[in-house]
Amino acid sequence: MKVFILYAHPEPKSYNCKLKNKAFTTLTRQGHEVKVSDLYAMEWKTVADKEDFTELESKDFLKYQVEQKKRKLTEDILEEQKKVEWADLIIVQFPFWWFGVPAIIKGWMDRVLTSGWAYSWPNIYDKGPFTKKKVLISTTTGGPDALYTDKNLNGDIIQILFPVLHSFYFCGFQILQPNLIFSPAHSEVDRKRDLKSWAARLKKISEEKPLPFSRQDEYCELTSLKKTDMDILMRKK
Amino acid sequence: MKVFILYAHPEPKSYNCKLKNKAFTTLTRQGHEVKVSDLYAMEWKTVADKEDFTELESKDFLKYQVEQKKRKLTEDILEEQKKVEWADLIIVQFPFWWFGVPAIIKGWMDRVLTSGWAYSWPNIYDKGPFTKKKVLISTTTGGPDALYTDKNLNGDIIQILFPVLHSFYFCGFQILQPNLIFSPAHSEVDRKRDLKSWAARLKKISEEKPLPFSRQDEYCELTSLKKTDMDILMRKK
Repeated sequence: MKVFILYAHPEPKSYNCKLKNKAFTTLTRQGHEVKVSDLYAMEWKTVADKEDFTELESKDFLKYQVEQKKRKLTEDILEEQKKVEWADLIIVQFPFWWFGVPAIIKGWMDRVLTSGWAYSWPNIYDKGPFTKKKVLISTTTGGPDALYTDKNLNGDIIQILFPVLHSFYFCGFQILQPNLIFSPAHSEVDRKRDLKSWAARLKKISEEKPLPFSRQDEYCELTSLKKTDMDILMRKK
Repeated sequence: MKVFILYAHPEPKSYNCKLKNKAFTTLTRQGHEVKVSDLYAMEWKTVADKEDFTELESKDFLKYQVEQKKRKLTEDILEEQKKVEWADLIIVQFPFWWFGVPAIIKGWMDRVLTSGWAYSWPNIYDKGPFTKKKVLISTTTGGPDALYTDKNLNGDIIQILFPVLHSFYFCGFQILQPNLIFSPAHSEVDRKRDLKSWAARLKKISEEKPLPFSRQDEYCELTSLKKTDMDILMRKK
């Protein structure tokens, strides 16, 4: 497989970096090809604005998504798109900040997943362009797992991840079960154990089945989905 | 009331800018004091990194949240924190990109809502520092409202907004019902109607009651909340 690791953490000695490195070495040893975007090291431009285009269709009124379709994109965006096109699997590795991805990852999504390339109505979800590719979200939290259930104050982490998972599914990607590591800051023993089980999982990653998200033909306007993707995430099948 | 409008859009002629301006004039005319942070105009630094600190406790291993607690923060962060401390109500106005806030808003949250100031265990949620303040999320989508229900492929927008709403609630803020404008790009008539009803709502904003989110004393470890905040958002009370 061709694996693209999209990684962000401001500290190269962080546990997130170790998880990224473990993925790199494990997958490489299994014979997979691996490319990495280390967004902090790349000083990735995070803010979506008119500087993202080498030419503007409309100079006096920026319609960002309309300009994206024209594909007069800067080189940094095109380079990331080439990695996405190349990859069979994208691993997104980041610390869980404010119940979501750090700004630098969101800026990658805002700028790289362009209209007309990553999606174009009605080519979304299971009709999206990337249905042959998979995405695996891998993240670490500050709080303990006990706080992240639907019966505790934070809410279920898988519900909280819904917008991120569904953003990638919007472009067609098959979504693998996320790799969730709770509160690794507190125990070296747990950190080692979780690094090991991450490597063990990655050794068999090609065999994994994606989450059974809904397809376009399961609904039509004004009728209902039998079960929602949120239900599926919450395993209330 | 003192109102702080946190606003982001790359185009000053955008509908989001009109919504921001409408909020500013309406609230000012009602006698409220209003401050605005226009993140694009301010060229807001979006990425959280070691440059956010004027002094580092630990120079060779950045623990971002640990450094935040030391409060050796750069001036741009301190300025935003002063606005939060000053305000009774924060309105967050942005376009809905990839099922969430644009990177520049996420970068405001990552950098400004610092550990030890916006939260510190167990002073979170209804025990957080900002329980006397309110937050109102105001956003515009690309897709139509029909797509944003729990029975359609996007999922319910209020479920999708959960991580953003709950991030602010984590710091204690009371959360008002979000202002959601679906697909404004497609009709000038709808845009005018929605601007008008936004102004009408803001005229009575001081009277609004927050969403009845769960309190810390409604749960204790290993027991369950009777209803979850996601349930409350979904009005399955």
